[in-house]
Formats: sequence, C-alpha cells, structure tokens
Amino acid sequence: MKKITLLLIIITATTHFLKAEDGHQLWLRHTAAKQVKVVSPRKSPVLTIAVQEIKNGWLGKDGAELKFDFVKDGSVTDDGFRLEGNKIAAKTDLGILYGSYELLRRQYLGKSDQNYASNPSYSRRILNHWDNLDGSVERGYAGASIFWRQGDSSLQLSEADIALYKEYARANASIGINGTVLNNVNASAKILTIAYLQKVQAIATVLRPYGLKVYLSVNFSSPVTVGKLKTADPLVPAVRHWWAAKAKEIYSLIPDFGGFLVKANSEGQPGPQNFGRTHVDGANMMADALSPFGGIVMWRAFVYQPSNEDRTKQAYNEFLKFDGKFKKNVIIQIKNGPLDFQPREPFSPLFGAMIKTPVMPEFQITQEYLGWSNHLVFLSTLWEECLQSDTYRNGKGSTVAACTDGTMDKRTFSAIAGVSNIGLERNWTGHIFAQANWYAFGRLAWDNKLKSEDIADEWIRQTFLSPTEKKMERTFVKPIKEMMMQSREVAVDYMMPLGLHHIFAEGHHYGPAPWFSNKAIRADWTSVYYHNADLLGVGFNRSSTGSNAVEQYHEPLRSTFNSLESCPEEYLLWFHHVPWTYKLKNGNDLWTALCYRYDSGLQRVRAFQRIWDSTKGLIDDERFRSVQSKLKIQSRDAQVWKDACLLYFQQFSKREIPYDLERPIYELDTLKKLTKSKDYE
Amino acid sequence: MKKITLLLIIITATTHFLKAEDGHQLWLRHTAAKQVKVVSPRKSPVLTIAVQEIKNGWLGKDGAELKFDFVKDGSVTDDGFRLEGNKIAAKTDLGILYGSYELLRRQYLGKSDQNYASNPSYSRRILNHWDNLDGSVERGYAGASIFWRQGDSSLQLSEADIALYKEYARANASIGINGTVLNNVNASAKILTIAYLQKVQAIATVLRPYGLKVYLSVNFSSPVTVGKLKTADPLVPAVRHWWAAKAKEIYSLIPDFGGFLVKANSEGQPGPQNFGRTHVDGANMMADALSPFGGIVMWRAFVYQPSNEDRTKQAYNEFLKFDGKFKKNVIIQIKNGPLDFQPREPFSPLFGAMIKTPVMPEFQITQEYLGWSNHLVFLSTLWEECLQSDTYRNGKGSTVAACTDGTMDKRTFSAIAGVSNIGLERNWTGHIFAQANWYAFGRLAWDNKLKSEDIADEWIRQTFLSPTEKKMERTFVKPIKEMMMQSREVAVDYMMPLGLHHIFAEGHHYGPAPWFSNKAIRADWTSVYYHNADLLGVGFNRSSTGSNAVEQYHEPLRSTFNSLESCPEEYLLWFHHVPWTYKLKNGNDLWTALCYRYDSGLQRVRAFQRIWDSTKGLIDDERFRSVQSKLKIQSRDAQVWKDACLLYFQQFSKREIPYDLERPIYELDTLKKLTKSKDYE
Repeated sequence: MKKITLLLIIITATTHFLKAEDGHQLWLRHTAAKQVKVVSPRKSPVLTIAVQEIKNGWLGKDGAELKFDFVKDGSVTDDGFRLEGNKIAAKTDLGILYGSYELLRRQYLGKSDQNYASNPSYSRRILNHWDNLDGSVERGYAGASIFWRQGDSSLQLSEADIALYKEYARANASIGINGTVLNNVNASAKILTIAYLQKVQAIATVLRPYGLKVYLSVNFSSPVTVGKLKTADPLVPAVRHWWAAKAKEIYSLIPDFGGFLVKANSEGQPGPQNFGRTHVDGANMMADALSPFGGIVMWRAFVYQPSNEDRTKQAYNEFLKFDGKFKKNVIIQIKNGPLDFQPREPFSPLFGAMIKTPVMPEFQITQEYLGWSNHLVFLSTLWEECLQSDTYRNGKGSTVAACTDGTMDKRTFSAIAGVSNIGLERNWTGHIFAQANWYAFGRLAWDNKLKSEDIADEWIRQTFLSPTEKKMERTFVKPIKEMMMQSREVAVDYMMPLGLHHIFAEGHHYGPAPWFSNKAIRADWTSVYYHNADLLGVGFNRSSTGSNAVEQYHEPLRSTFNSLESCPEEYLLWFHHVPWTYKLKNGNDLWTALCYRYDSGLQRVRAFQRIWDSTKGLIDDERFRSVQSKLKIQSRDAQVWKDACLLYFQQFSKREIPYDLERPIYELDTLKKLTKSKDYE
Repeated sequence: MKKITLLLIIITATTHFLKAEDGHQLWLRHTAAKQVKVVSPRKSPVLTIAVQEIKNGWLGKDGAELKFDFVKDGSVTDDGFRLEGNKIAAKTDLGILYGSYELLRRQYLGKSDQNYASNPSYSRRILNHWDNLDGSVERGYAGASIFWRQGDSSLQLSEADIALYKEYARANASIGINGTVLNNVNASAKILTIAYLQKVQAIATVLRPYGLKVYLSVNFSSPVTVGKLKTADPLVPAVRHWWAAKAKEIYSLIPDFGGFLVKANSEGQPGPQNFGRTHVDGANMMADALSPFGGIVMWRAFVYQPSNEDRTKQAYNEFLKFDGKFKKNVIIQIKNGPLDFQPREPFSPLFGAMIKTPVMPEFQITQEYLGWSNHLVFLSTLWEECLQSDTYRNGKGSTVAACTDGTMDKRTFSAIAGVSNIGLERNWTGHIFAQANWYAFGRLAWDNKLKSEDIADEWIRQTFLSPTEKKMERTFVKPIKEMMMQSREVAVDYMMPLGLHHIFAEGHHYGPAPWFSNKAIRADWTSVYYHNADLLGVGFNRSSTGSNAVEQYHEPLRSTFNSLESCPEEYLLWFHHVPWTYKLKNGNDLWTALCYRYDSGLQRVRAFQRIWDSTKGLIDDERFRSVQSKLKIQSRDAQVWKDACLLYFQQFSKREIPYDLERPIYELDTLKKLTKSKDYE
C-alpha cells in the first residue's frame, strides 16, 4: 500500500511542468505561426530575411496577404517604416525589415491597432564590444567573447560561429541595432593586421543581411606597432598616409565598414597628446582617412589626467575648447555621466556644451558597477533618466536626447552606443534579466522617447509569455514589471544612495570598499577621494565653494545643483559635502536617511525574491531557477553593501543605526578583507 | 576654525564611556563597600572567607554588626542557612558562607526584605569538566582547560593557577556549587597515576576553603592500563583489590575526595560488559572501594548499542532491570533527555522509572548542540522545563525535580551535575551570556524550584548593573531579560522546531546537516535516522505503531505522547512521523508551520540584535561589543539553519515556502559543502 501511495505522489508532483528554456532564444521565442502570403516588389538578402521572419512569426489573420511597399514620402525617414493595414511601407530594405519585426512584435503582444509608424532617433545604433583578441571580455560577465578566442590562430569562422553570429545579428536587427564594434576600446593594434581584418570581413558578411555594420576600435599607436613607422604623430605625413592606406585596405574587404572607435590619451592608451598634438589633430587625421569611403570616427571623451582637478570636470575642460574644430565625420562619444557608469550620476555637462560638434551618448549595458550579471537591474530607467535630462542648452527642453539625436542641430548623422553585455554563455548575458538591458538599449536607440515601463512590458511578454497571452497579467507581468522598474533605484539604495559614487572595491568594481585608499595610485581611483567622509559629514563638494563642477552646467541647473537646499537629493553627495546632521526633505537627518536607504535597498531585494518565487510554475523551471539563484546572490550582496557602507561611515558619523532597522550581521574588519571578486562567492 | 570644531567633536564623542570590563569578574563585580563588623563564634578557613566576602561587599547599613549564628533547628538542613536581621544562621561553616553570598546578593539586587531562608535541593551540586589531560576540552568553546595543559610534565601549580582556581572556586561557592569533576568522562587512565593525583591534591587544597570537593572521572580499564593487571573484570579479586587500594591512596592525599564519575560501555569506553559483567557489577565494585572513605560513584546511564533498537529507548532498557541492585553510594547520572542534549527533548523516562536507586540529572552547560559559545541561549528555561516535567511516577506531581532531589524517596544523598562551559578565555565562557548558564546551573542546583526569569534577573543585575541600580529597569533589565527568556525557544525554532532533533552536522554539531547520512557509520549517528523525511511526512515514529518509546513513560503521559492529536506540538516530530499536510492547532499544516518556525527563529535573532544594540552606552563598551559580535554570528547562523533545513525538507514536502516569508538566500548545494565547523566562520 505504502509504495503505491508514494508512486502516486511522485507522479502528481511531476505532472505540472513547462517546457524548459535556456534563454538562448532571447525575446524571439515564437515558432508556430499562421499562414501568410508576402508580396515584395523586389528581392534582396535583407528582404528575404524579412519575408522569412513574417512567415515564421505571423499571428495575424490566417491566410492574409502582406505587401512590402517602397515609398518616398517625407514621413518615413532613414530606415523608418509605416505599418498600414496589410502593408509595410519603407524607403529602404532595412526599413522593411525593421517594420517586419515591429509588426510581429505588435502581433505577439496582442496589440489590436496594427497601424503604426516609426523612424529611428539615431541613424547609428551601435553595440560596443569590449572584447579582447585573446577571447576575454573586459567588464564581461557572460563568458568569453563571441568573436575572438584564446589561441585562435586560424581566424576562420566555424559553422557554429556562423550560426551564432546569425542569431546575434537577428536579435540586434529585431530591436533596430545597426552597428557593432567588434573589439575592445582598449584596443590591440593587431586588429588592423590582414589576418584579423579578413576575419572581420567574414563576420561582416554574416551580419550584413541583418543591417548590422561592423566598426573597429583602433589603437592610436598602430602605425608604429603594425606599420613599423617610427612615430604615430598625426601631423606627420607618413602616419597620415598609413591610416589612409589602412582605411582603403579595410574598405576593399568590407565596402560598408562603419568606422573607427577611439579611446585616446585615456587610462594609459596612446593618443595625439603623446606627440604634443590635440584630440582634434588625432581625430581629424582618422576622419580624413575614412572620409572617402563614408566611414566615421567615434572619438571618446572619457579622458582625465592625474591632476588635482576634479576628475568629473576634465572631459568638459579638454573637449569644449575644440568645439567646431572636428571634421564632419567625427562624433564625440560621451558616457552618460561625467564620471564612469555609476549607479547614478547627473548627466555629463558636455552633452549640453558641444554645439558645433556632433556628440553621442555611450551607455553601459554590461553591469560593471551594477552587480555584474548577478544583480537584477533594469538599466532602461537609468538611460531614460539621462536622455530626458534637460541640459538647458537652448533653454527648457534641451534634453540630452535632443542634443544628441539631431533634433536641435542639423547633422549628417547621429549615433548612440551601448557597451555590450554579451558573451558565450548559453543565455548570452549571464542573467536572464540582463537580456532586458540589451533589448532596452536597442529600443531606446531606435526611439529615445520610449518609456522604460513600456519597454519592460514588451520584453517580459516576449521573453516569458506565449503570444497574446493575457491571463498572466496580474500574476506575472504586473509584479515583474514593477520589480524591473524599481530595480535600478533599489541598487542605488543598497550601493550608493543620495549621490554617493565610486565607493567600489578596487579593480573589479563588484563589492563595496568605501575604505579603499592607496597612496601608491592616483587619488581619483580610490573611494575616499569620492566620498570625503569626515566627522562633519560626507560627500564631494562640487559647488562653487568646492571644485565648482556645477559651473559646467547651464542655468538654472548650475544654481539648482550649487545650492544644498535646491540640489535634488539623489545628487546631494555628488555635489555637496553635507553635514551628518543636515535635515532632508522628509525630516530625517543625513545619517538617518543613509541608514534607511541602505536598509530599504536590502529589504526590497528580499521583496524581489518573494515576487520572483511567487511566479514559480508560471514559467519554465530552468529560467525560473536561474533567476531565483541570481536573486539569492543579490540578496546576500545587498546585505554586504549595507553593512560595509553603514559600518564604515558610522566611524565618522559617530551615530547609531536607528534601532528600528535590522542590524549589521558582518564585522567591518571582515568585510574589509573581501578584496577580490571571488571573495563574494 | 575647522580644526577646533573637529577637536571639540572628538572630545564630545569620547566623554561618554564606561569602565571597560572583560567579563572575568563574572557576576561578582562589586568592590567598594560600606563598613561592617562581623562577629563569628569560631574560626575556620571557610569562615575567614565568609568574613572577607562580607567586608568586601557589604551594602547594608554603614557600620552595622553582623553575627554568624550556628543553629541546630530542623528548619536548616545540610549547608542551608537563614538570614534574619543582622544574623546569618546555619548548621555548618559552608552554610554560613552560602548565607553570606546570598545576603550580599540580596543587598546588591536592592531587595528590601533581608530575611530569607534557604536549604539546598541537592546535597551534591557538581560541575563536570570534560577536560582532557592534554589541555583540550571536549565540547569546550572557551579556550583550553583551566586544569590541564598540553605538554605539562611538571604538574605543579603556578601562582597564576592558584589565583585562577581561587577565582573559580569563589564563583562556584557564590552560587552554591560544591563539587567538581576535574577531567573528561572519556577518561584517560593516567589521572589515577601518582603524578596526576598529586596535582589533583594541590587543586583540591585551593578549592577546599570554598566548599568545593574534587571528583575524578575514571577509566574502567585503569587496573590494566595503570595497574598492569591482566584484566579489569570487576568480579576478579585482584581488580577489586586494585580499586580499593587506589581509593585508599586517593583519600590519603585528599581526605574529602568526592568520588568517581564513570562512563562505561558507552561510545567505545570500556566497562564491565567487556568482561561479560553488568553495570551493577562494575558500579558496585567501585562503590565498595570508595565506601570506607565516604566516596560515591556517579554511574552514567548514557549507553546505547549499535542495534536496530530506537536509541532513545536503550538507557531505560539497560538500567531499569538493575533498579535496587546498586550499592547505597552509587547514583545513576541521567542526561535530561533520552537522546543527547538536543535543543529540546522530552525528559528521560528513566527519571520516573528508577525507584530503588538514586538518580541524578546531568545537564549540559556547554552548548554542544546550541551554537557553541557563539549563540546567546539561556539554558535555564531548558533545565527548568526538565525539572518541572511530571513523570507521573507516583501520580501527578512526580516531577523530575522531585524524583531526583529526595522529595519522593528517602536518600542518604542527592546530586545534580552540569557539564561545564569553562575554559581559559578571559571571560571564562567565551560568550558573556554563557556565564548566565554557569550561574543558572548553580542556582537551580541549589534550589530547583527557582524560576528562570528570577535567575535571569539576578544575573543581569549583578553582571551588568551597579549595586541597587534601578534606573536601567526599562532600558536594560526588562528587554535583556525578555531576550534571555525567549532565547532557547528561538534557538529551537531556527534549529529544529516541532520536535525535530539531531539534524546537526556530523562530529562538530555546530551547523545544520539534515542531509547527513553515511552507510559506513551507525545509523543513529546520522541525521536521516532521526527525521525520516519522505514524500509523506517527517518525524520519528516512537508511538505504539513505531518504536513504541512512549511505553517507557507512565500514564497519562504514555497516551498523551502516543496520540498525534494529544501530543504536545513541541514534541510532535519526536514521537510521530507526521504528514506534511497534517493540520496543527493554529490551522497551519505541518510544512507551513515548519516554515514559519524557522523564519520566526531568524527574525527573532535579528530582534535580539536590535535589543542589544539599543543598550549601547548603558554598559561598558568591551562587553557590549563582544556580545554584539556574537549576535551577528548567531544571526548569520540562523539564516544558514533556516535555509538549509527548509530547502532540504522542501525536497520531500514538494511545497513552496509561504510567499509572505523571507526567501532563502543560499543554495542547498552550497550549504551541503559546509561540513567543517570552520566553514561557518
């Protein structure tokens, strides 16, 4: 009897399951489709893909006929499109392809109105892969590079490579990404040797039908390293000739090559200043080399010198003076904030300062400072916050979006970059929810006015639900969307609330190390440089009584940031050294507020765990468990962050953590020993 | 200006401090006293100490006169005493000493009524030191042995030893402890060699004026190991003669030697069964040897064979048949529960079964199964629960206390033992609050009707407050007392609620290992033997349909325990294998109840942290920080316990943890790798 009962229980316990999914399909999981006939006035590799996608994913009327329609009216620009009844109208083949993906997305999401028009905000929507030629990925947390391998001397694409790159290109095309930089900005000059360029050519061939152009990061010293010249001085004719010849060589292999991404005179990388020249000299030389073939130069503004000047001021000081001096095919690539991809920064003032030179935002999709691929942090809200920040360059409404997408200035091209979080892990990004950041970057690059909440909604339904599924609205979509929408603010709270910044452990930037200080390295690579905690208070005084970084912002922002009273509390310790006893708007003093923020961060990660666990059985077990496991790590890490920061700052505030809050469970001295990222495992 | 402000803040921040205390003074911290004249009708070493203590600690009327009064009335028995106005009345010198400590305690506590009489519940109140001769302490978590040292060949007492033993003896005398077993029950025979006996003699000399008699644990094989006989068979005359001679030798060195403690035929220790003899044969042989000198034999009932019989039944089965066959100076020493010092066990049925043989409780003060010296667990409530358990031996009211203290049987002596938690650490016990367990054992051994709450109150005031202090009632005494009173139940909740038992990690018994199973060792040393979790439920069926251990209890207990419905829920899984779906009294089913218990345990440890932290500044910083640090460990451990047990049992229950509860933060597989006690650091 007992055995029979046991058996019945086993059967009952295993009948309820969903198809296992490993996340490799990303947001493109649909296979079964209804019948549709597609009519195209012409043929091309791009259009062939569009037809195939429509046939594979059609959820409209069974047996319907869909027409591709090439139009010339001004309402469709660039690779934009218009969906009208049974037509996709566009000017270009790629416009048809993007329209096809949008149509399928709308069908999948069950949107009743299938009429919709959309043009891209930026003409170049580019992923930056920080992939090294040895196969490692700088700040990569999802396995090795998909493009390069350790000890790979053949540099041939395998069948598996080609299959993977097709999936990669398709995923990017589905969200409108049309460019990819294949190698790290800390670039090896070897990328410009013929063997590597031939591999780039092979990759470009796979990506091309999906509209994905390849770009390369180049090392400024390449003429010396690869070209065997004695100098890389941009004003020396032999050097200029070398770059021109190299450009010609590249375009002979890849006629639609996108251009160069350059990190010069930054963090040890060589640049024109090594030869007494300027960023203008360097960028324009490359621009001249690429110009005949339609290539562009993306010149990064992420530069800072080992000086006493506030690091956040330096990019502005270095570049503003060159405004208007760059060639037409140069664009300045600016990180969203003036420091370095922190959980929260005010926007970089350079966005509102460069008027005669095109500028482009660089966002970081990979979570260098946001818990790697272990923490669930939906970055769309961070990017939306940056894009919608008003620079007041031409008065109210001069948002970062408007300053970069051509709204405020007639530009021949515009661009936006996202540092990729992609690696060889089966689910591409390590954390299933990190796929949402790849997705969101693409969607915002296409339309920088999209709302993060809508992007989250789209991503959740495509990633976890069946097509047109409506039953899981209350049980799944709503709570998961809320979790995603809160997640960046939660990470800010448990990591560095109220404007704290860069109090990370050295090097790996994973865990907390507000105590980090090292006289042997430059001050602005330490934590204490940024928080300045003392017995009086904490924070970096960037007001007019301090480094005066506020002067780089237009009025009224300058005054708003400059005054302790009017400064938004989320930037308080970014702009001010604030007394521990300073009263915030809710009546709490600074120390108390810090305590509540850190605790709230931890408690809300625990709430994320509850939310996620409550969805068990609604989605496949494989992805459920993967996310569940990551949330456990995030919960443990949030506790470490809270304890480390509060116990450290308590040494200065000399105050108690409010007794209604959960107490630290670690000793400060123990936490100080967590110096390597593996110490957190 | 800035420097001056900083300086002022530093001064302000350091003015509020209390005298640092390292805990070495235990509950005897008072030094300053008022004037008092003490009149004693006679002199003795014991009385000299009493006079000195009174003079050092007098808090009564300044210049008062206190008389020692030797009386013969029947209201004072043994070493009892009566406090009356300006008199301490007693029959013995030790009665005067105990009365003196009680008088001083009452003055310290600010008790207004100084008239009080008290006689000891047990005539022998004994610490068992599980100290090995190599200086290690079995299940000791407060440093090395105070009596033995590694590589100590001189076996001489140093000045420091003598000072320490005096402090030790004084602390014991202050709470009425009058005996101490100096070595581990897993005894080295070497203790009976002359060199060691001479050291025992020296120790006894230091302890004697404080009324502390020494006892020794003896190895049953000593006649072979030490005496070079060919056998230790208790019926062989040469063996009997050897023991008699050894006793004579011991008493020639230590005329007031207490007697032997024997662990025989238990966990690999030799015993009479090795020679085909019985526990009676062995115990009586030793009793005969000691009898001429007034010594006793404490024979441990902690025996179990590698058989299929439920381990908890074996001591009863082995010993009950010998009831009445032991010599008059033999007493059977029984652990509080039938298994082994678990966080909660029902009382051992042997207490209510042995009628013609004296039995004594063995409590474990050292926290082998209760978080070592890391967890704050006030054990008084556990012991009170055992002492007040009704065996129903002679109907209602036949408590374990009454069965052991002579209330129910005319006995020539009675005894109680506590396994010491003392070591060489400066604060004696590792955890400041572990001192409370030493204190409580002494107080309950003196008066087994004392309430744990009153003991906690006494201990808190003497350990942390100034004499007669009343201002800290609300801020300190009340919350800390509540914490202590809850602490054992909290530990049960996060370790093994609802009657779960022995799901500890192998060997060290510190952390959880419900998964522990090993075919290479006896089943009753594994966890799965005890919890029996399967898809139907969890628990050990000791009802009449199972091992029928319930039969060892008198009615109505037998029926109460036997029925799932009437079995107290705290013993539910001790006596029954209970379905996961079984509804408890509060309406929750078993699985849900388990989840809430584990979570409640964790949450309440966190509450302990809040309570303790809120007392910062009320006591000295050194002890504050020491306890604060231990509570952090306890909080981390409680999380490990909760996660390990719920994730493990969930594999069988196939149920979700209720979604309103905090989620696990660890993976079961990770927790399974915590096999060594240092893995928890």
